Amino acid sequence: MTRRTDLLSRRRRLLGPNVPTFYDEPVEIVRGEGVWLWDAEGRRYLDCYNNVPHVGHCHPRVVEAIARQAGVLNTHTRYLHEGILEYAERLTAKFGHGLSTLMMVCTGSEANDVALRMGQAVTGKTGFIATDATYHGNTALVSQLSTRRPPIGGYAPNIRLVPAPDGLRPLDGSMEAQAQAFAAHVAHAIRELEETGHGFAALILCPFFANEGFPGLPQGFLDPTVAIVREAGGVLIADEVQPGFGRLGSHWWGHERLGFAPDVVTIGKPMANGHPAAAVLARPDVMEAFRGAFGYFNTFGGNPVSVAAAMATLEVIEDEGLVENARDVGDYAMARLRGLDHPMIADVRGAGLFFGVEFTEPGTTTPAGDFVLRLVEEMRRRGVLLNKIGPGGGTLKIRPPMPFSRENADLLVETLADALAVLPA
Amino acid sequence: MTRRTDLLSRRRRLLGPNVPTFYDEPVEIVRGEGVWLWDAEGRRYLDCYNNVPHVGHCHPRVVEAIARQAGVLNTHTRYLHEGILEYAERLTAKFGHGLSTLMMVCTGSEANDVALRMGQAVTGKTGFIATDATYHGNTALVSQLSTRRPPIGGYAPNIRLVPAPDGLRPLDGSMEAQAQAFAAHVAHAIRELEETGHGFAALILCPFFANEGFPGLPQGFLDPTVAIVREAGGVLIADEVQPGFGRLGSHWWGHERLGFAPDVVTIGKPMANGHPAAAVLARPDVMEAFRGAFGYFNTFGGNPVSVAAAMATLEVIEDEGLVENARDVGDYAMARLRGLDHPMIADVRGAGLFFGVEFTEPGTTTPAGDFVLRLVEEMRRRGVLLNKIGPGGGTLKIRPPMPFSRENADLLVETLADALAVLPA
Repeated sequence: MTRRTDLLSRRRRLLGPNVPTFYDEPVEIVRGEGVWLWDAEGRRYLDCYNNVPHVGHCHPRVVEAIARQAGVLNTHTRYLHEGILEYAERLTAKFGHGLSTLMMVCTGSEANDVALRMGQAVTGKTGFIATDATYHGNTALVSQLSTRRPPIGGYAPNIRLVPAPDGLRPLDGSMEAQAQAFAAHVAHAIRELEETGHGFAALILCPFFANEGFPGLPQGFLDPTVAIVREAGGVLIADEVQPGFGRLGSHWWGHERLGFAPDVVTIGKPMANGHPAAAVLARPDVMEAFRGAFGYFNTFGGNPVSVAAAMATLEVIEDEGLVENARDVGDYAMARLRGLDHPMIADVRGAGLFFGVEFTEPGTTTPAGDFVLRLVEEMRRRGVLLNKIGPGGGTLKIRPPMPFSRENADLLVETLADALAVLPA
Repeated sequence: MTRRTDLLSRRRRLLGPNVPTFYDEPVEIVRGEGVWLWDAEGRRYLDCYNNVPHVGHCHPRVVEAIARQAGVLNTHTRYLHEGILEYAERLTAKFGHGLSTLMMVCTGSEANDVALRMGQAVTGKTGFIATDATYHGNTALVSQLSTRRPPIGGYAPNIRLVPAPDGLRPLDGSMEAQAQAFAAHVAHAIRELEETGHGFAALILCPFFANEGFPGLPQGFLDPTVAIVREAGGVLIADEVQPGFGRLGSHWWGHERLGFAPDVVTIGKPMANGHPAAAVLARPDVMEAFRGAFGYFNTFGGNPVSVAAAMATLEVIEDEGLVENARDVGDYAMARLRGLDHPMIADVRGAGLFFGVEFTEPGTTTPAGDFVLRLVEEMRRRGVLLNKIGPGGGTLKIRPPMPFSRENADLLVETLADALAVLPA
């Protein structure tokens, strides 16, 4: 038995079936540093996928902050502690639109679970709207918003999933028409929720539409939708778990890039570089409505160690100029990807260090999901880790740690060119 | 403005209203070591309350394990890693009843949210039963089980809360009659759930009834209830977040002490000594039903750092004999508490390092909640941190870190005697 089959067999026995892994031949990663990962055989991989180790795998400043605080104190927010207040001051200063209050939790799922209930607390209603190709987390409530992982027992009647925007296959002809069409779907869903007595509590969306395949949407795309949400009195939640913390290069947050004002923002994965931390930011009136309606306390949320990890991560982003790096390297990489010559490449798109290449059957808009699946495996064999996303799984998803350099981008693009040269269509 | 009022004002502005704190004059804790905490003015407190720092505040082995692993690798379970498998082997070996599979998440709330859905996945039904004085967590679903923190928008129709057992005010005359009465309430709730079409999916309870005031229940108390749950085909969930990891002294888990076989066990707070980690243990058939019904993945759950923290915590419990210590010191402390002479002391009870003193109006079974509230504050002023729980808030709740010594117990009991001597009834 190889080491891999032994590990897989132990996983099956100890963790149960259907525990997801990446790749046909899952890799055993034992060490990480910056944008690099090493497997158990000492082989090095360029990490073009992991967004959780935002400032790089095992960044020494984050490791040191965790180790130092873990050795001094790790309690909870029922005692006073200055750490969470200093972090809240630093973090909320990164937000406009009156998003000046913070609640710390442990996972993006917990953050979205709270955010949705903020919608209920503000409106007194229960209906939620999301897109039909999204994923916002895995609690019983939040899993109601997912089509990729349909909830146990089926969808609740207070959920409406509206068609996601798409670049290659727009909901309507022009981008402007698509913006109106998306808003019309939201308006229709609101009417249905009101007519069935649930009422409209909140619309939640990722302002980069990351799980929908990050279609290239212009600034202002959501303006018609936002107007409809405002008119209906609902709460607008921006799930910044993926686009947040400067990944898109041009702004710290995806909603800034798209140009709209959410009532609530959720953040997660990259917040503390892999230490389990997430948060909800809200306007004071929204936070107060939730805090008045429900006596929420999260044992681990906002503990001094999680705060120290989050603070160190934020400081590294600033001190190492990682937002500017994301813009520079992202632009550079996308320019190089646009130079690739392959009959199935239909689109190169993205922002900052979240970009990708969409492959379709030649001359059509039909996603080439099987081809991309094989391409991902071929790239792994060549020492580059990335993945796929979007309609039909047709888009290569590239979302590396933020210290990703032009040299790393060169290696990525050259390896991709080599893989495309040998891979049968 | 004092430092405390400054911190409270910043909390109000940055975190919103109603963020819970302990004590009339909340303490600012800046350092912890073993069973001791220090405030910002350098004052030392004996920690008789915090169960999250299970093996002691800032235990050097746990801190070192976190620091070491954080510097080597922190990814997720989509890559293979031996750490989670070794931990799963060590941890599941601590369980009987076929509870041989593990799912790691980040909080007890997430664990219970999954456990309840395991009940749905196994039974195809949706109804849940808990006691009317419990708390199992704060997700939208799990908060449905709480009376202390009623859910936003009210209770869902698939929830039934049954009267909790009580030592001083039993549901029926004798303890045996109370065991039958509790089972009868569960049977009634099951019938209601079946009649209203929800069906019975799961009964969830803390096997120490910690939030219910940890009534002194004999082994076998739940036998009639378990028989009814089995007959109805429901799933039995033991929430071991509070009694687990040897706190009760006699056993590693509360369900062993009470003597019953759960289908699912959830663990949390003490699991990694304060690092955000929690888990669900289940029989393979139950885990498989859930894994087949829902494509669950938790980004932070089971990451190598969380696993290292959990493994170090488990090893320290064993290497330092903390379960045996809990039994010895708990028995010693309760014997000393029983020697206290005070007209309002109605009961001294508990197990291992989870014990307390119930105070009532003299000569009655009416909980003396106001008195205990003042007693808790008086103890804080005297440098001992503890809290209250149970019906009417009448029980002093003592649940210190597990290295709590006989000497610590002496200080606790002597301080309590002093406080009782001066506190007006």
